[in-house]
Amino acid sequence: MSKKSFKDIFIGPALENNKLEAEKLKVVWGLPIYSSDTISSVAYAGEEVLMVLFPVMALAATRSLVYVMSAIIGLLVVLVFCYRQTIDAYPQGGGAYIVGADNFGEIPGLVAASALLVSYILTVAVSSCSGTAAIISAFPAAAPYKPWIAFVIVCILTWGNLRGLSESGVMFGLPTYFFIGSLVVMIITGFVKVFVLGYAPPAPTEMIRTTGDITVFLFLQAFASGCTALTGVEAVSNGVPSFTDPAPKNAKLVLTLMACVVGVTFIGVAALTDLYHITPRENVTAIASLAAAIFGNGSVFFYIFQIATVIILSLAANTAFAGMPLLLAMVAGDGYMPRQFTVRGARLNFSNGILLIFFAASVLIFAFNADTHTLLPLYASSVFVSFTISQAGMFTHWTRRKEGAWKHKALINGVGTLVCFTVCALILVTRFLDGAWLVVIIIPLLVLLMKAIKKHYDKVAADIILRGDVKALVQRRGATKVLMPVQSLTRPFVKALNYTLSLGAPEIEFYYVGSGDGREQTLKKQLDALEIPGAHFSCDITELRNVNEVLLNHIDALEQEMGPGQSLTVVMPQLTCSETWTELLHNQTSVKLKLELNKRRNVTVISVPYILK
Amino acid sequence: MSKKSFKDIFIGPALENNKLEAEKLKVVWGLPIYSSDTISSVAYAGEEVLMVLFPVMALAATRSLVYVMSAIIGLLVVLVFCYRQTIDAYPQGGGAYIVGADNFGEIPGLVAASALLVSYILTVAVSSCSGTAAIISAFPAAAPYKPWIAFVIVCILTWGNLRGLSESGVMFGLPTYFFIGSLVVMIITGFVKVFVLGYAPPAPTEMIRTTGDITVFLFLQAFASGCTALTGVEAVSNGVPSFTDPAPKNAKLVLTLMACVVGVTFIGVAALTDLYHITPRENVTAIASLAAAIFGNGSVFFYIFQIATVIILSLAANTAFAGMPLLLAMVAGDGYMPRQFTVRGARLNFSNGILLIFFAASVLIFAFNADTHTLLPLYASSVFVSFTISQAGMFTHWTRRKEGAWKHKALINGVGTLVCFTVCALILVTRFLDGAWLVVIIIPLLVLLMKAIKKHYDKVAADIILRGDVKALVQRRGATKVLMPVQSLTRPFVKALNYTLSLGAPEIEFYYVGSGDGREQTLKKQLDALEIPGAHFSCDITELRNVNEVLLNHIDALEQEMGPGQSLTVVMPQLTCSETWTELLHNQTSVKLKLELNKRRNVTVISVPYILK
Repeated sequence: MSKKSFKDIFIGPALENNKLEAEKLKVVWGLPIYSSDTISSVAYAGEEVLMVLFPVMALAATRSLVYVMSAIIGLLVVLVFCYRQTIDAYPQGGGAYIVGADNFGEIPGLVAASALLVSYILTVAVSSCSGTAAIISAFPAAAPYKPWIAFVIVCILTWGNLRGLSESGVMFGLPTYFFIGSLVVMIITGFVKVFVLGYAPPAPTEMIRTTGDITVFLFLQAFASGCTALTGVEAVSNGVPSFTDPAPKNAKLVLTLMACVVGVTFIGVAALTDLYHITPRENVTAIASLAAAIFGNGSVFFYIFQIATVIILSLAANTAFAGMPLLLAMVAGDGYMPRQFTVRGARLNFSNGILLIFFAASVLIFAFNADTHTLLPLYASSVFVSFTISQAGMFTHWTRRKEGAWKHKALINGVGTLVCFTVCALILVTRFLDGAWLVVIIIPLLVLLMKAIKKHYDKVAADIILRGDVKALVQRRGATKVLMPVQSLTRPFVKALNYTLSLGAPEIEFYYVGSGDGREQTLKKQLDALEIPGAHFSCDITELRNVNEVLLNHIDALEQEMGPGQSLTVVMPQLTCSETWTELLHNQTSVKLKLELNKRRNVTVISVPYILK
Repeated sequence: MSKKSFKDIFIGPALENNKLEAEKLKVVWGLPIYSSDTISSVAYAGEEVLMVLFPVMALAATRSLVYVMSAIIGLLVVLVFCYRQTIDAYPQGGGAYIVGADNFGEIPGLVAASALLVSYILTVAVSSCSGTAAIISAFPAAAPYKPWIAFVIVCILTWGNLRGLSESGVMFGLPTYFFIGSLVVMIITGFVKVFVLGYAPPAPTEMIRTTGDITVFLFLQAFASGCTALTGVEAVSNGVPSFTDPAPKNAKLVLTLMACVVGVTFIGVAALTDLYHITPRENVTAIASLAAAIFGNGSVFFYIFQIATVIILSLAANTAFAGMPLLLAMVAGDGYMPRQFTVRGARLNFSNGILLIFFAASVLIFAFNADTHTLLPLYASSVFVSFTISQAGMFTHWTRRKEGAWKHKALINGVGTLVCFTVCALILVTRFLDGAWLVVIIIPLLVLLMKAIKKHYDKVAADIILRGDVKALVQRRGATKVLMPVQSLTRPFVKALNYTLSLGAPEIEFYYVGSGDGREQTLKKQLDALEIPGAHFSCDITELRNVNEVLLNHIDALEQEMGPGQSLTVVMPQLTCSETWTELLHNQTSVKLKLELNKRRNVTVISVPYILK
């Protein structure tokens, strides 16, 4: 075991491989971890619908919100039936990538993987930005620091996830229950206040003229915007192996429980929004307006509810931290992503995947100035692309095997496919200019990238594989010629020279590049005085200060003179400082040089370390 | 000569050392290059004064603006006399760093250098942000993209400066004359309209109650804010060697000409601001309001004037690009900054210094959201810190030497010292909370950093120097022991093995780290079958996936077993891809490993290149 380092304290001590089992989730903690994403959408989905309806319908918008939300809950029920089947069919974890690749082959699988990656990153960005909106609703003075607040949320989550999933269960589970509790208390209070205590919520003071009634297109547009509420529904089916045994049964239970919680709270909130005449306002979210109307603006309950909202949204972001590294590890395992994503870190999590989410989400937060509304079309469309592929894959799964009650199951997933495809098309059409167009660009680009990575790895594997008689390939080549670039006689140079002598090279060339100011003669005298057998001095003069370039040209010339089997070795001292920051003050030239030399087939670089005191 | 690369086309072809002379500036181009900073202040200095006066004095503020500006021009005259003496005394370039270090020693010199570095970077940030404000005044729709517009300006300037100073003369000189011309046309038109054509500018429609009259404190506060107009006055004395011979005479001429232009235009603009009743507005600068009032809003002349303003401000930023790399090269030459800053690039400019400005200014632009007003207190206070040290240094210069008319000269610089110190204190006191406090933190930090860098370089120089009989130090040590980490038998491994054999090492250890799944036995058999003399196989089993750590521990153990004079060599294959992007898909583990191994005194790393097809 290594000594207790900064990393140990910050990330926690390393865990052994067999600890993997202990990290599994019970239903009671699996529910909050995998459903926080969907449940938290209550913080923004209703507002998205209102923002579509309000400009046309004004005060009548809130009534239509209830209908739109009911339609969305209907869609949720369909999805729950569909994904219960996915869990049964793919107990090893049935994300859209697996289902797509398994049933349709490479390209649809990669499209699904790309859509999932995009939506995971957007889960983090959207949730942290929406959490920030909740903070600003309670503390409007914080408005100018919006992206920074969202960024801090992402930083905290990254840190929590680098420490590992097991502590996540309790740490992230309790607050989700706290939010669900707050939501239920608010819904009950809201109804009791009006129907039992006879409170009449004030109608908005401004008389806003209703300019239009609901049309089919407006309804569809509102529906498409509200479908952001269903992002995260697939998370459970991706994460089946994370549950305790029997994993599929527990996962299905979590999925059903989640749908119940989501259904009750979404409809409750939509009904109350109508009852309390909530309208969209700047810097205050609709749900914060509702909480203020029910609990009283500035009351303790209002602030508790805002805190609970911030926390649940932060945890929704955590869904992606739980899911995306697993997906990346799978895709990388198949060779479509850099291999580093398959490596579990010291805490048994996929640290590189976690860091990728961190960077990508941070960029999105600052690029979109932490505005949830502009991020949502991109989010919803990528989610429904993956839903569609997943459902179509499941339909194919049943119709190919024709086992058991396959017709019944194929029907459910067939309906799921049609519904998801319709919603996906709806979002792309109605929100195309609002950001959905990005999906049409990013997903194909990601697919091309993954194909290119796979092609590269395949090529390298074919290149480095050994065939035939290995023993015949192993042979002692002629001794190598050594080139030692030298600027002046220093202790590091002498150490490198001594190392070179220990290699017993028959020929050593000392090589100097200068501006022709006579220093080369001094150096030649000093080196000749050392009387090293087999050594000679050479130099080049340049007026262009491009020492590295002249040196590389000289090396190329030497390489061309060499016969087959011969090789050139460049020996250089490498200064190492005891403090890390001072590294920047040295070796800048030699780092560039080594990168160039690595490209030469018959040139080997030896860096002889010289540790500065 | 190398082949024509992307860099050649982007930055221009490399120049030889003796081309340095040709890059010098005549007065006609030196004036615009070194005075654009000061002249461009007309775009924001008056507005800064108004922003102090207006909340207290309302419409009476513009009259006081004329008085405040007159006082500032008075200060300018004092500074011109002072800096003419600096030019005479330091014809090799008399920046505050040189004057401070020369007359007071290390610490005051470093304080001056730090203040100059901060003010150079702020010149770029303030000027590009103010240029952006001019663009937004003409095109208010661009307001949301403020930091990005400023960033684009900085990018263009960086590119221009990477190409070199000689083209800069014409490229940057003509637009400065164009701006001065526009300014003169505006001033003349403004006065002619009122006094010749009898035009009566409309008083503002809103009746704003005057809540107070000018007090001494308010006047001083306004004066301190307006002193941003004088930033850049010292640029000429820093850059004396850039002028054609006789350099000091030409530099003094440029300084005097600049003061005349600045005096006339500042007073003219201030008088017109009063005459046309200009008041501060959001998203429209005061000078843009004035131009609109004189030329007519939306007229061609208004747009021409805005374009000229944007360009002059961009060129003001260029002053720093001309000055800061020279200063950095000087400070780095004295060992207080990383040595890379002393290296002239292929185009004879100090590319690293230019890139440092680029990064620092970009960070400031985004951190302050391109708001000129919040950047200015920081800017003005750092500039006057360097002015004060420079003047005090000049005073000491004369009083120590007592040559010629030293009493007269000492008097001028003594007055300069007192005035600059007073202004500096005034800015720090009146604008402390507005950002001047940052100067009190940043400058000491920079001084500490420079001291630390100097200390480090001194230590290294003492460490690597060779003393006594060099020949006795050169000795052939015992042959090195070779360790070859191996995961599986591949072509790159065989190539590395063949290279190792060519070194003739007496002992080779193949070393494998695995999870104990039996692969180590297969590998041992394969390696034993090669029958390499002096080679043996060893392995370690780990459950923690920390292959690198186990390998390092093994190496440390081997290093401890070694006697004095013995050394260990680690040979590893190094995969190199023909395409750069694929590099990221390989060698990640070995890069980390090499960084660690470089810290070990008796371990040398050999990377044997394997070029992938």
